Amino acid sequence: MHITEKDSRPGLAQIEEQISSLISRMTLEEKVSLCHGNTLFKTAGVERLGIPPLVTTDGPHGIRQEFKEHKFEVTGQTDDFVSYFCSLIALAATWNDERAYDFGSGMGQEARARGKDVVLGPGINIMRSPLCGRNFEYLSEDPYLISRIAVAYIKGVQQQDAAACVKHFAANNQETNRLSVSVEMDERTLREIYLPGFKACVEEGGVFSVMGAYNKLRGQYCCHNEYLLKTILKEEWGFDGAVISDWSGTHDTMEAANNGLDIEMGTERPFNEFYLADALVEAVKNGLVEESVVDDKVRRALRLRFKAGMFDENRCKGSYNTAKHQRASLDIAREAITLLKNEKGILPLNENSIGSIAVIGDNAVKKHASGGMSSEVKALYEISPLEGLKKKLGGKVKINYARGYSENEAEADILMEEAVKAAAMSDVAVVFAGLNHDFDTEASDRTDMSLPYRQPELIQRIYDTNPNTIVVMISGLPVEMEPWLKNVPALLQAWYCGMEGGNAMAEVLFGDVNPSGKLPVTFPARLEDCSAHSIGEFPGSDAVEYKEGIFVGYRHFDTNKIEPLFCFGHGLSYTDFEYSGLKITPPSVERGQSAQVSFCVTNTGERDGGETAQVYIRDTESSLVRPEKELKGFKKVFLKPGEAKELSFVLDEASMSFYNDKIGGWTAEPGAFEVLVGSSSRDIRLKGGFELKK
Amino acid sequence: MHITEKDSRPGLAQIEEQISSLISRMTLEEKVSLCHGNTLFKTAGVERLGIPPLVTTDGPHGIRQEFKEHKFEVTGQTDDFVSYFCSLIALAATWNDERAYDFGSGMGQEARARGKDVVLGPGINIMRSPLCGRNFEYLSEDPYLISRIAVAYIKGVQQQDAAACVKHFAANNQETNRLSVSVEMDERTLREIYLPGFKACVEEGGVFSVMGAYNKLRGQYCCHNEYLLKTILKEEWGFDGAVISDWSGTHDTMEAANNGLDIEMGTERPFNEFYLADALVEAVKNGLVEESVVDDKVRRALRLRFKAGMFDENRCKGSYNTAKHQRASLDIAREAITLLKNEKGILPLNENSIGSIAVIGDNAVKKHASGGMSSEVKALYEISPLEGLKKKLGGKVKINYARGYSENEAEADILMEEAVKAAAMSDVAVVFAGLNHDFDTEASDRTDMSLPYRQPELIQRIYDTNPNTIVVMISGLPVEMEPWLKNVPALLQAWYCGMEGGNAMAEVLFGDVNPSGKLPVTFPARLEDCSAHSIGEFPGSDAVEYKEGIFVGYRHFDTNKIEPLFCFGHGLSYTDFEYSGLKITPPSVERGQSAQVSFCVTNTGERDGGETAQVYIRDTESSLVRPEKELKGFKKVFLKPGEAKELSFVLDEASMSFYNDKIGGWTAEPGAFEVLVGSSSRDIRLKGGFELKK
Repeated sequence: MHITEKDSRPGLAQIEEQISSLISRMTLEEKVSLCHGNTLFKTAGVERLGIPPLVTTDGPHGIRQEFKEHKFEVTGQTDDFVSYFCSLIALAATWNDERAYDFGSGMGQEARARGKDVVLGPGINIMRSPLCGRNFEYLSEDPYLISRIAVAYIKGVQQQDAAACVKHFAANNQETNRLSVSVEMDERTLREIYLPGFKACVEEGGVFSVMGAYNKLRGQYCCHNEYLLKTILKEEWGFDGAVISDWSGTHDTMEAANNGLDIEMGTERPFNEFYLADALVEAVKNGLVEESVVDDKVRRALRLRFKAGMFDENRCKGSYNTAKHQRASLDIAREAITLLKNEKGILPLNENSIGSIAVIGDNAVKKHASGGMSSEVKALYEISPLEGLKKKLGGKVKINYARGYSENEAEADILMEEAVKAAAMSDVAVVFAGLNHDFDTEASDRTDMSLPYRQPELIQRIYDTNPNTIVVMISGLPVEMEPWLKNVPALLQAWYCGMEGGNAMAEVLFGDVNPSGKLPVTFPARLEDCSAHSIGEFPGSDAVEYKEGIFVGYRHFDTNKIEPLFCFGHGLSYTDFEYSGLKITPPSVERGQSAQVSFCVTNTGERDGGETAQVYIRDTESSLVRPEKELKGFKKVFLKPGEAKELSFVLDEASMSFYNDKIGGWTAEPGAFEVLVGSSSRDIRLKGGFELKK
Repeated sequence: MHITEKDSRPGLAQIEEQISSLISRMTLEEKVSLCHGNTLFKTAGVERLGIPPLVTTDGPHGIRQEFKEHKFEVTGQTDDFVSYFCSLIALAATWNDERAYDFGSGMGQEARARGKDVVLGPGINIMRSPLCGRNFEYLSEDPYLISRIAVAYIKGVQQQDAAACVKHFAANNQETNRLSVSVEMDERTLREIYLPGFKACVEEGGVFSVMGAYNKLRGQYCCHNEYLLKTILKEEWGFDGAVISDWSGTHDTMEAANNGLDIEMGTERPFNEFYLADALVEAVKNGLVEESVVDDKVRRALRLRFKAGMFDENRCKGSYNTAKHQRASLDIAREAITLLKNEKGILPLNENSIGSIAVIGDNAVKKHASGGMSSEVKALYEISPLEGLKKKLGGKVKINYARGYSENEAEADILMEEAVKAAAMSDVAVVFAGLNHDFDTEASDRTDMSLPYRQPELIQRIYDTNPNTIVVMISGLPVEMEPWLKNVPALLQAWYCGMEGGNAMAEVLFGDVNPSGKLPVTFPARLEDCSAHSIGEFPGSDAVEYKEGIFVGYRHFDTNKIEPLFCFGHGLSYTDFEYSGLKITPPSVERGQSAQVSFCVTNTGERDGGETAQVYIRDTESSLVRPEKELKGFKKVFLKPGEAKELSFVLDEASMSFYNDKIGGWTAEPGAFEVLVGSSSRDIRLKGGFELKK
């Protein structure tokens, strides 16, 4: 990551002074005009004082196309095609913060060139259930992985003088009833699972803005939730940026005014009728809201502008659709594709030894950029898997394409027979299966984990016809994979991996690229194995109870000894890695000190490859129940055959702590901690430990 | 150009033997099956003998999308997006055979990867009239420039193991009545103007196939024109490849069979009812056509397959949408854009000194790839000029876009006022004016040279509002430009310059790229100044008489002393070039010997730049009238400020010759020849001469 200081910018004290001066010269109406949208994606500015409007844009996978000012209707321009980097879940599967920085940097540049000030992303909500329609826009089930990826993404965006706006704060873990549901969870769960990502974005990422969620937490809307916004975000974490509402996520002037919402955005009413518009002016005039409260919002809205360089002549100018962004997208896709199964070395394929390949599946030809609602991207281009394979193989290997399945049930039989025929006449069959943005989408959740469009039957029949069958799963959510998975020798999870996805998939299938993705989320065998479904509620109705508490994702599967289909952190390679030489010092750690963990990873196979080494700890003695293990560090390394690298990690007191809601704070309790080093959460290669002294 | 021998290929003698062996084993029906289409773009093969079908594809600007097998209806796949290099007229404007080779090479690769054997291009017909709808697909009004560009393009295509198919042979210089009109011209004109490009493609380019034209020549359809196909192409020039008909351009079995058509393609009837299908079998059986005539066609169809590597395991496999092709497209566009006028140094613009720019015109946002009929391209992407400018300038310079004009007359007034307003509020106005593929298109010609959609009025009003007005003309054809041109300080001709065109235009406008294009065709001030309109006929009805003879393009303007708007070979630069030191040796040339011409070009300005030095000769004494001057050599050089390069040319006897139809052959007559070296056909910098001895 290449963070540089902006030398041309005034210092913080100077900024605050300038802000004070501006505020002192503003009328109440001008102040309030900065606190709410005056078009679909923009707030007003104050021209006479040189304060520009604030222009936001949906992301987070690419800067969204242009809309009419007053309604969700596209303008249909030809100059708003952009780079479609990839879905955030694919980014998280890289487990590489350099890729996240490049992604964010590209987004920041494209935002700036498109005249945008605020990128509405990243989305970082915890993947509580595999049914949540918006998981593909999020990062992980694990707050530590989320933090590392999100912080790098935010730094990338903001280095380009655009503000990131981390969302959705907080506990927006389902789409069903998202506009009304109240999330009920205990304090420890909130602190350990649902908030750490946001905390890192504020404290480490220095994010300029935060978006309130649609849902309620403990009965109060998140967009004006006093506990979330005032107590935690602004007071505890010292967030000095602006809180922006989700679009039409505000419901009350007094709460919004007094509980910490700074900018209300939306579409549902005339802009002057927003809760933080004329009604706020009235409330101040009637003495119901202190003008100082408004001043604080304005200060934050102005601070955001200063930080994003909006008063700086030398503000980054940005660009879009650059070769660099396209390359960044390709590099992310190359690292995101996750090899879940590979028996008999069937992968990588060898283009010199196979004469024909059946390419099967609607997802081999489907483009996904334009789906999913607010995260849609009007991509300059998107290489489909079939196009990627044709590009790669050219006239060399005969490609027999068959669609295999479609959303039209009436043609299912015909498509299936064609596909079986294609598989029969080919040396190898690759089925591009999975979902699409009819499933992976904002505003609705799935109701089950099944693979739609009779794909299980299709895959089984293809395999029965040609045992050299490889499945490439394109989806943001895990799906049920048995019984066919036990037969099929190879499976790649390819997510929605962006405009260059088809190229990357072809490269991975044929070994030009050695896959190095790791699952950022547990792939359960069955929905009922997931804690939100077996212990907690999902999706609830007026309220949803997170009874599973902290036992989300692998914390649940590991602690309760449930075998997942593929565990958190899992991802194979075409080469082999050996872990050795675990050192942990000191064996006995003083309070307030850290443990140093180091070990060596060696590429013992015959190809270049990337490996993400993962460090988990287990607290063996605790007054409160703790998860079987928790991720506390990871590092991705690229090694040539025979090459070794020593990796070092610091486990500080925070990484040993849990949130003790009896005392209302974080505690690291003395006793033995086990350190588990692995290639996944369940492929633990090295074990050691240390003691935290009393 | 990087031509490599194909070591794995059998030698010529061996190929002929293999072909003979194959023919000896074929039935008459199998033979005939190779001589006509059996789907829209494909002929049959003979599976039992391992002879593959021959798959053709429309070009020449990008490999065309997939169609259903039996009708012109697209399949709508997502894997047939391709690179859209640019229109051929733009390629010719580069005056650079390296760019032509890259273009052809990219086309060959994309064809191969898409499973195509024959690229139906390049189109090289002479631009006889500025109204011909298909000029944008052609190269020039000058046979020498055509030859240089076409030969390099063909070598590029064929080096990738795809066949080029140069078209349309011959004298297809208008679209009006193209299916019926008979071209009447004298022999000298045919030989000097309309055939040399094809001759070069055969003799120097080694083109594997030639496409017959739709029209008649001297009363006989070109697709089975005995004089063109048998006498000239095959006997005189020794062409040993296949003659392919234009689609449905065949009209008679006996003529087609006996006059040299080898493969009949089309759509209008069931494939077995083609003239060279069942009817040919019958004709042979009835003794009306010798089987040896069919054998010759089959030999040519097979020779084409051998030359294109279709029997070679190591045949080039190709690829498409590669970064290399996109870069090639960009490099071509950068060299194609032609600076026609630049007063007061208004160009290049400086992004650090202008605060705002009005971007005006439908052509600023219009994408052109998909127009023009058979040369349409389903482009992976196409950067519009507005997108190119926004990408380049990012948030730095305020862009005020206004459409300015449209094809809808009803909105003309509103659009014009908006544009004037945009120009008024901006430091600079750039009008992207011109035509589109409603005008530049196969199947129809323009009826006049006017600039449509009230653009002349628009440009004048923009200029009146903001004198810093630059016009960028996007068109394949020249248009009338007065009276506005005398006011407007700068004019760029940007053609249809491909998927990267918008990027290249932004780079040229802002000086990142120094324009180096030169007009490959005269831009007349008025239609009536053109010889096809003032002397010859255009478009004729049953027949069209080319009474202007050899006086086409600058040959006419120069000889008849008519001032063009911009002359052939014209194109300015942001730097200056000085020509010096002309040497011509020997002063007196023996018959059969050559004159050596050399001179020096120096970049005397302050920017890197490219210049195409042009060598013309004038035959001062001749028994037949000769043009004022004719292009006989050119070379593009790129020079840094202060850098100089010595250029050398050989003028051989052929370049001094004219076709003497009294004796039916080429003659170089003794006497004085003037050598004119210039930066354009009318900006002659150096003069010298030599004498051809008796």
